[in-house]
Amino acid sequence: MIIKLDMNSAIPIYVQLRNQIVLAIGDKTLNEGDGLPTVRQLASDIGINMMTVNKAYGILKNEGFIEIDRRHGAKVMINKNIQHDYQEKMESELNLLLTEASLKGFDTSEILKLCQDIMNNLNKEKIIGEN
Amino acid sequence: MIIKLDMNSAIPIYVQLRNQIVLAIGDKTLNEGDGLPTVRQLASDIGINMMTVNKAYGILKNEGFIEIDRRHGAKVMINKNIQHDYQEKMESELNLLLTEASLKGFDTSEILKLCQDIMNNLNKEKIIGEN
Repeated sequence: MIIKLDMNSAIPIYVQLRNQIVLAIGDKTLNEGDGLPTVRQLASDIGINMMTVNKAYGILKNEGFIEIDRRHGAKVMINKNIQHDYQEKMESELNLLLTEASLKGFDTSEILKLCQDIMNNLNKEKIIGEN
Repeated sequence: MIIKLDMNSAIPIYVQLRNQIVLAIGDKTLNEGDGLPTVRQLASDIGINMMTVNKAYGILKNEGFIEIDRRHGAKVMINKNIQHDYQEKMESELNLLLTEASLKGFDTSEILKLCQDIMNNLNKEKIIGEN
């Protein structure tokens, strides 16, 4: 897994790290059951503070993307029980993002095409991953 | 315009304020050319720091949703020139959001339906707004 962090971004490093791990699960670079590096290892590899890695792992755990075991460390384990809270958060973020895009002049067909492309890409990656 | 802020949210207040104003433009509560309250007024109305309002207005200006005139204050003015940067940011945020949703078990048809509903709603609001 290649972690790309932008130290000049307004997005906090722990959020960037969390996002990169979610994307790696999405494109099957990381698969269900795969172990993540230890906090110490990852912090050392990418040259950031251990607390930052710890914070990202904590969020991923709370969001149901990974499990953390005291002895075996963190591994990818997706909780597919869509909690009402998650659905509401997702819908409101999607609403905000599409509102912005629409105000900026994207039309419905462009936006739906973009969503369709992203989903096709995710599904393709899933099928390759399952072979 | 009703501004709803969640003081317990992990999302910073200035980001929440920025998001609420974008949504208000999206649903035509605020229209092109409408003036926004002064920084002092809005800060006082919702009981937050003037610097927080100022930061939100500054971001909206940089993003091309409002203009700020030293004499006449802030007003809604959308810059529809989709900068390459904006498009890239939008696509990467959409990719992250749909990846999360897909991992959480939403399927393609549910997600496209949701996007379609949001766009229908925005377009409906536009038509009403134009009457």
